[in-house]
Amino acid sequence: MEHKSFSDMPCPIARSLEHVGEWWSILIMRDAFFGIKRFDDFQKSLGIAPNMLTRRLKGLVESGLLEKRSYSDHANRYEYVLTQRGKDFRPVLISFLAWGNKHFAPEGANLLLADADTGKVANPVLIDKKTGKEIVQGSHKIIAGPAASAGVRQAIKAADHTETFF
Amino acid sequence: MEHKSFSDMPCPIARSLEHVGEWWSILIMRDAFFGIKRFDDFQKSLGIAPNMLTRRLKGLVESGLLEKRSYSDHANRYEYVLTQRGKDFRPVLISFLAWGNKHFAPEGANLLLADADTGKVANPVLIDKKTGKEIVQGSHKIIAGPAASAGVRQAIKAADHTETFF
Repeated sequence: MEHKSFSDMPCPIARSLEHVGEWWSILIMRDAFFGIKRFDDFQKSLGIAPNMLTRRLKGLVESGLLEKRSYSDHANRYEYVLTQRGKDFRPVLISFLAWGNKHFAPEGANLLLADADTGKVANPVLIDKKTGKEIVQGSHKIIAGPAASAGVRQAIKAADHTETFF
Repeated sequence: MEHKSFSDMPCPIARSLEHVGEWWSILIMRDAFFGIKRFDDFQKSLGIAPNMLTRRLKGLVESGLLEKRSYSDHANRYEYVLTQRGKDFRPVLISFLAWGNKHFAPEGANLLLADADTGKVANPVLIDKKTGKEIVQGSHKIIAGPAASAGVRQAIKAADHTETFF
């Protein structure tokens, strides 16, 4: 791999990418949300080389996003199911879906998110659950958390994110 | 690159990953939101090799997420600023941030999102803006969009996402 270990960086985005920062991993997660559980079905859906799929599934299991379970009396039949940590990845996927539909679907949307009860197309946006305020440019900012080192506090203070973030 | 072109897939998540599906690209976007604009500053922040940084910045410019602008009278001084498409990537980054804080910050959060007015820590969640309904397991589902082919409609119908998605 050509990257440094992001785990060294205290940024939660960097740490997340340590676990899913790869095309295939995110597409495997997408398929898992879509109900796919078995190796052959992932392979068929993704057109991925078997050794690559093996590696990525192993990584997602090690990172605690998928759990490997045997699904029959056959010794070597496994399925991969979402853990709670994996399920909590949902907002990332939906945010990708909304962004892709907005910017990379010139012919119109192929897939949409809809209300499960009414079937009406949803418009996913982020809000602060505490205040109900939509998270848009200028509404929110990054602050140091309780575990931030002096260096992190310094970097946040120095960052010029008054205009853009977040 | 070891992956097929995801642009062939009509999925909006796959198409998004075509443009940012790489550790560095997402971290460069994070830094851009944080106010970083210049090559040297990206390099210092990321500890990335210059040729890699050049490649990734070029990709993000070509994908329309960053705009390259000269920032002084010097011929070769450029800065990279977020386009509207780049700014619309915000929810993906914030979703990564929230997920990282929840699952990969055993020592506590280093960075948090806070209300820009009150400074109070925010709890970012996705809702359907049309209904106000939070997007959680079982609340929403994937449906075919207007541009979906017969094959896509078939795949959505066949998918077992009643339990997990979305």
